[in-house]
Formats: sequence, structure tokens, C-alpha cells
Amino acid sequence: MLAVHLEKGTVRVNAVAEPLRPPGFALIRLLCAGICNTDLELQRGYYDFWGTPGHEFAGEVIDADDKTWIGRRVVGEINLGCNQCEWCRKGLSRHCPRRTVLGIVKHAGAFQELLTLPERNLHLIPDHVPLEAAVFTEPLAAACEILDQVCFPCAAEVTVLGDGKLGLLIALVLNAHGLKVLQFGRHADKLRIAAKQGVQTELVRGSLPECAYDWVVDATGSSEGLAEAVRMVRPRGTVIMKSTVHGTVAVNTAPIIVNEVTLMGSRCGRFEPALQLLAHGTIPVAALITETLPLREEYS
Amino acid sequence: MLAVHLEKGTVRVNAVAEPLRPPGFALIRLLCAGICNTDLELQRGYYDFWGTPGHEFAGEVIDADDKTWIGRRVVGEINLGCNQCEWCRKGLSRHCPRRTVLGIVKHAGAFQELLTLPERNLHLIPDHVPLEAAVFTEPLAAACEILDQVCFPCAAEVTVLGDGKLGLLIALVLNAHGLKVLQFGRHADKLRIAAKQGVQTELVRGSLPECAYDWVVDATGSSEGLAEAVRMVRPRGTVIMKSTVHGTVAVNTAPIIVNEVTLMGSRCGRFEPALQLLAHGTIPVAALITETLPLREEYS
Repeated sequence: MLAVHLEKGTVRVNAVAEPLRPPGFALIRLLCAGICNTDLELQRGYYDFWGTPGHEFAGEVIDADDKTWIGRRVVGEINLGCNQCEWCRKGLSRHCPRRTVLGIVKHAGAFQELLTLPERNLHLIPDHVPLEAAVFTEPLAAACEILDQVCFPCAAEVTVLGDGKLGLLIALVLNAHGLKVLQFGRHADKLRIAAKQGVQTELVRGSLPECAYDWVVDATGSSEGLAEAVRMVRPRGTVIMKSTVHGTVAVNTAPIIVNEVTLMGSRCGRFEPALQLLAHGTIPVAALITETLPLREEYS
Repeated sequence: MLAVHLEKGTVRVNAVAEPLRPPGFALIRLLCAGICNTDLELQRGYYDFWGTPGHEFAGEVIDADDKTWIGRRVVGEINLGCNQCEWCRKGLSRHCPRRTVLGIVKHAGAFQELLTLPERNLHLIPDHVPLEAAVFTEPLAAACEILDQVCFPCAAEVTVLGDGKLGLLIALVLNAHGLKVLQFGRHADKLRIAAKQGVQTELVRGSLPECAYDWVVDATGSSEGLAEAVRMVRPRGTVIMKSTVHGTVAVNTAPIIVNEVTLMGSRCGRFEPALQLLAHGTIPVAALITETLPLREEYS
């Protein structure tokens, strides 16, 4: 079968042996996968990753211990917890200290014809949700995670920095939640997707407003995003950090302390709310697809 | 009268003219003042400050518009708000964008024989509280501020890094609040003050525990404190930032995001809870006095 192989910044598509299915795991045939900014960061050296990347996918179960899975269309949570520690017991295996992560940490990813994941990580794709939408479950869950972490006042104004895939999903999720969203980005065509749903958008040309917003989400994916967000937030405001970047960032901590700003790291989320949004067709994810490539085509 | 003058890192005590009392202000005779780490930072160039520093004081009102103040022993809130903006209206003049700050930003400080502050900034010192204790009102309020910002679960375990004055006050306040406090520091004699009140203390010799605590307060006053606190906090934990340091700090943001850590800047607090703690004699502040100097003695 074909599998993408990433090593030292080089990407190849190789013919490899089919993976073995360990007990408790499902063998899944890849139907569709998404390329995430994290995949590009892995290529730049983040996490010293080598192997098959890919963690946004929709697939069909080929084999499993529980035979009722076979033939079903699934998405899968990407964190493989130990299922024994306090985090796993709390349903937070995404913070299990012994976890591996699909296509990111010590578990081969989804950019291959067949992949494996624990059956407990799987979620059925609702029948009428197309595969191209289901593949957004994982990043959509990451966007929804903000709502699990922050209790926004009703109709609060939230500012989103960045109009990449995650930035758009965050703006759309918060907008669908009834918040008043203002999104800054550098791509008129991408901002238009959010604007169509009622998000107020602004194309960034020069400098951004300072000390102006109570809630700022940094989804720029750049190392400058955090400092920018800190400049934009009002005293006692909150910056939600969604940009995992490689290396250290120079932060002037004085304004964070003087203005009593809160910075909140935010990563993966639960799949349930994301699947519900997809089932209801609330988020126009299809508009976010820029290109569709067959697995065999090498990207680099 | 005598006034400390700080300019370009040099400290002098000069004879200067008595300050004029603007309308709405009280003229206050200094009785006692405390030297804060911020004063030492000002000397290092923080805020490009020049003039009379000093913001921890107890004094006697000499003159005021409201004559009932005259002869009373007072402490004073250090932020001078515009009294008109939304922050001032909310009782948060410490975040007023037009504020000046006693001995820190554009308002002559307390290290002089006579100082001025708006009458609305004053609080009476309870009769039986000695001056040497009252002078701790401001840093004690900064310690109490944490309890205004964070809703700790009952008897939560909180870790405090640093055993300087602010670190000790924070540990003692959280301990008095019924939390289970663990304090790390480098000075056995200082840690003993906290230990006597029931704080669990640990003298730092080598490396500190990693991913071990849900709540970590950085009161080290050093630029390395934040990175240390981030290493010590558990996933989904909170780091409370109490160390205002000069310049930028290199922060590896990836673990903050991956572990969904919250960083919370924390600065000045309300004087009321601090005065209540002093009135009840709950916090043994006298033990924190290391040396008493007359104003005329030059320090450098």
C-alpha cells in the first residue's frame, strides 16, 4: 500500500507493508485526509517527527475486535491515551502523559492507505455528512475547545487573528455560538468565507488596534501572533493561544502583568460538538477546501 | 524637606521645596515606607523612571479639602485614575489608561517627607495596626489580588515560587485563605517565616519538579521564573505571573498550548482585604522587615 513518509524535511510517497492491527485497535481504510499547519510545522522540524504524518482523516473500518464497526465510516480522536491514568479516567486522554498522537508523536498517521487507531478513539460519521466535511472534525473540535475552556458572556465580542483554516473554523464556531466575532486576516478570499456567515472581517494592511478587545484568539500560526494579540487585548482581557509554533518566542511580560492579561493555551477538543455542528450543517467547511490531491502525488 | 531622587540609576537624598496640594488631594507627612522590588527595577531602568520613587507607605494627613482627614493615619492606593473612564467607574482605576502611579508613573512617590495623593485614594489605618505593619498594605493587597482573580477550589494546593517579600506575602495570604501552600525559595531564613504559619516550604537546591502542580505562582522576581513555572505546572493548570521584570523573556509557547496552560498576569489589588488581614493580625508582616533606615540615609 502507499504511505507518505516524512524524514528530515523531505516528503516521499512509498509502497510499504500493510500495518498490523493490535488488539483493541481498528484497521481503517483512508477515504479522505486534510493537511494541517501542524503537518507543515512537522516538516520544519517541530517534535523531531519522522514517519507518516496526517491526523485529520475520514475512513472506513476494515477490521476491528468489535465487528459492528466493520464497514462504518469513521473519524478518530488523535490522542492515544494509556486508558489508565487520571487524565484518561477523566476523559482527557488528550493530556495523558504517556499518550502517542496520530501522525505527530510515535504513532503512524493518516496519510497512508490503511491506518490503525484504538476502537475507543473512533466516532461514527453521521450518515448525511459528506467525507469532505467529516475530515474537518478534528480541526473543528480544536476550534470548539475554546468554548469548553472559556465561559464567554452572552453575545461577547471576540477577535480572531488569522484567516488560515483554524482561524476560519474558530471564527465560524464562535459566530455560530452567538458571539460577535471580528476577524483580522491577510487574505480577502478567505475572510469572505467568514463574512458570508456574519463574521465582521478586516483585511490587515498596516498596524492593528491596541488595547482594544477583551477576547483575542491568536490563530495566526506565526511566532509574531502572540505579541500582536497581547498588544491588542484590553486590560484584564484574555488571549487564547491557538498557534503552535516551533521554537521560543520573545515576550515582553510587563504589559501582561501590568494589564493583568490572561493567556490561555488551547489545543485539541472533544469530537462530539464538532460532529454535531457538521451534522447540522452549521459550519460551511466545504468552502475551506482549496485543493484536492490523490495520495500518490508527492507534495513538498 | 528631604526627598529621594532617582535618575539614571543613581539615588540621592536632596533638600527640595514642599509639594503643592492640588484640589481634591491630601498633603501627607510620611511616617514609614517600604522598599519594593519594583523600586529596584526602576533603578535598573524599568519604565524610564526619574524622580522620587516609593509607593508603599503609611503617613499622617496634614491637609485636605475634607478636613476630617487631618491628623488621621492613612495608607493610599497607588494608582491615580482619571475618575471618569469606564475603568474608574468600575472601581478599577488601577487599569485607567490615563492613570499616573505613585512613585512609578508621573507622580512623585513616597520616599520624601511630604507627598500628595487624591483623597479618594486614602484608607484609614485601623487604630491598633502599627505603622510598620500598615506599610505592608500595598504589597499585601497585591497578594490578595490573586484571590480576586482566581476562584480556587476549596483547600486547593497552590505552589509559590520565590521567597522575597511578595512571595512570602502571597504564600501567607493563600495559606490564611485555607489553601494548601507549597513554597519554593532559596533563603532558609525567609522560608522559615512562612513555615511557622503552616506553609510547606522547600529550599531549592537543584532542579524543580516538572508537570507537578495545578496552580503555580511566579513571584521569583526573575526573568527565568516564568519558564520555570511553566515547566512545573500540570496540563490545564494555571501560572499566576507576579514578577514584573524588565525586558523581554524567551518563552517556548508549544508546551503552554499543548498542555493548555493558563498564564494570568496579576498586579495591584484592592486595599480593603489587605487592611482587614492587618486589622485581624492574620499575617505576621513584622517578621518580613529586614532593616529600618532613616530617609536621610542614601541607598544605592
